[in-house]
Amino acid sequence: MRYYEDFQVGDRFDFADYRMDEAEMLAYARDFDPRPMHLDPEAAQESIHGGLTASGIMILAIALRQMVEGFRDTAALGSPGWDEVRFHAPVRAGDTLSVSCEILGMRPSASRPTLGIMRGRFTVSNQADDLVLTTEPTWLMARRP
Amino acid sequence: MRYYEDFQVGDRFDFADYRMDEAEMLAYARDFDPRPMHLDPEAAQESIHGGLTASGIMILAIALRQMVEGFRDTAALGSPGWDEVRFHAPVRAGDTLSVSCEILGMRPSASRPTLGIMRGRFTVSNQADDLVLTTEPTWLMARRP
Repeated sequence: MRYYEDFQVGDRFDFADYRMDEAEMLAYARDFDPRPMHLDPEAAQESIHGGLTASGIMILAIALRQMVEGFRDTAALGSPGWDEVRFHAPVRAGDTLSVSCEILGMRPSASRPTLGIMRGRFTVSNQADDLVLTTEPTWLMARRP
Repeated sequence: MRYYEDFQVGDRFDFADYRMDEAEMLAYARDFDPRPMHLDPEAAQESIHGGLTASGIMILAIALRQMVEGFRDTAALGSPGWDEVRFHAPVRAGDTLSVSCEILGMRPSASRPTLGIMRGRFTVSNQADDLVLTTEPTWLMARRP
């Protein structure tokens, strides 16, 4: 198990790639973002991106999942928040997303001595290396017992 | 249809409440946030919240959906980003979430004269009126043709 003490500012993690599946993309949009630009191929042609795109929240959820799976062996405990979520480019069915995270800051928790607070920069890019999404999450990590 | 010109700073919208369903909560966690605190009732007892909680990204996705459904009759076009996503309190199965949005700022787009840019503050609270999630999204709205 990796704890707070096993990380340092500047560490970079590349998580597993994810290929956007059209059926999953449509199912997510039906459940959580039922707008024509995400659901209806004809209406989406008229939208600002000229075709069906994934919901931004789905891209964020995928980035989180790739991190959760990549960080299974760490003592990460949850997140108080995410700053500056930015959607830079649309994601379409068939796109392959690369997800990475760099550690920007670390400090021990002042109120809870068993925890450290980490701040990172998440980057999601597509197969053409276009930036798709960035955000700066904060998360809690247990200190080594 | 409501356009940019039909809104003003200070307008507040209360969207439909949502009751957190345990099966949906677990299904979302399996797909997007497969951590024991969201999936495994026994392991979740040991977590910082002392029981199963919803994934924060699911709460954000629900807030977005309640807005999308409440704004069906508007010319909203998509979002460049969300600032200061903050998870204030855990959400558990059976909780009822209230979602509202207040408009904090509006300006015409300098580069695209057919669009306006709106900034809001999203608030998600539970049935005890505890603040659960806040964020400040920015979104684009078509101007009246």
